[in-house]
Amino acid sequence: MANKEGILLVLSGPSGAGKGTICKSLLREAEIQYSISATTRSPRTGEKDGREYFFLTKEDFENKIKEDALLEWAKVYDNYYGTPKKFVEDMLLDGKDCILEIDPQGAHKVRTNKPDGVLVFIAPPSMHELENRITNRGTENLLEIEKRLSCAKEEMLCMHNYDYVVINDQVEVATEKIKAILVAEKCRVQRNKACYL
Amino acid sequence: MANKEGILLVLSGPSGAGKGTICKSLLREAEIQYSISATTRSPRTGEKDGREYFFLTKEDFENKIKEDALLEWAKVYDNYYGTPKKFVEDMLLDGKDCILEIDPQGAHKVRTNKPDGVLVFIAPPSMHELENRITNRGTENLLEIEKRLSCAKEEMLCMHNYDYVVINDQVEVATEKIKAILVAEKCRVQRNKACYL
Repeated sequence: MANKEGILLVLSGPSGAGKGTICKSLLREAEIQYSISATTRSPRTGEKDGREYFFLTKEDFENKIKEDALLEWAKVYDNYYGTPKKFVEDMLLDGKDCILEIDPQGAHKVRTNKPDGVLVFIAPPSMHELENRITNRGTENLLEIEKRLSCAKEEMLCMHNYDYVVINDQVEVATEKIKAILVAEKCRVQRNKACYL
Repeated sequence: MANKEGILLVLSGPSGAGKGTICKSLLREAEIQYSISATTRSPRTGEKDGREYFFLTKEDFENKIKEDALLEWAKVYDNYYGTPKKFVEDMLLDGKDCILEIDPQGAHKVRTNKPDGVLVFIAPPSMHELENRITNRGTENLLEIEKRLSCAKEEMLCMHNYDYVVINDQVEVATEKIKAILVAEKCRVQRNKACYL
């Protein structure tokens, strides 16, 4: 029982649904480790290499792809994002749960590469609210906002590929639901076969 | 959202694992209704018709089988046990969650007749503890105890047909886990498609 593999929890959903906020809330309130992604996008103000992301050059990132060293990777808005495989696998084998906050393209690849990962779709309370959040972010230029809006609408259609959907209406409520999902997943028969059968 | 169908939670597992205790605990602590089963076995001391069970004659029960009025039924230790279909369906359609405490044969039939029911296997902390519990119950004669022991061992092997396994080591802990399972199941994408897609 002590060495049971940890759970890979994938939080995803459209840009603007608030998956980042929920991720931070879970890291405070649940026993779960953060999987640091690699990216080629530029750091935003306050972001630090090796904390929010591993900031890589395009060349370094493409080498990691060639070496099959990424659990998933995707190109979003001309930048690469990906998850270093070994970092995650070591945590899970150590029995620690691990949280991945990624875009829907990446989530889809985790489904293929790590089928027992738990995919949670973070949904906005409504499409109208999603548009407001994206428009009022203030971190992107107009072209970027338009790209994000049309992309977010497409991303909403990916929901059926996920295991769970949690509406981000109140962060505390959404956080409690995801904590319950973790408890429930640990009780899943297919995660416990080795212990009892 | 208000009219979303309730969840049918099936608690099952070997005789002696303590599913009855956990069921009572859940009825106190969760918003869930009890599905009263029908049976042909004799009432135990303190049991009341229409509260713990609907106590039926063999003839009445067999009529219900013919009328297809049971969600599941099984013959265990020479007695029939079953779940009146309409009683459960009305609650679920009303958006109420409903708990069924039944033996593994019955649980298997619910899987077929109501595939979106949630099957939870209540497991004893160990086989040794299970034997103690069955032997010390004092409500059966020796032959009955032997029957129950061999049956319980077989029933342990049914675990792989279930969605979740919860060890009944401490009733409070087991109850919390099942409450989390209910929260998680309400977030399942396939239970929310109608609302978002």
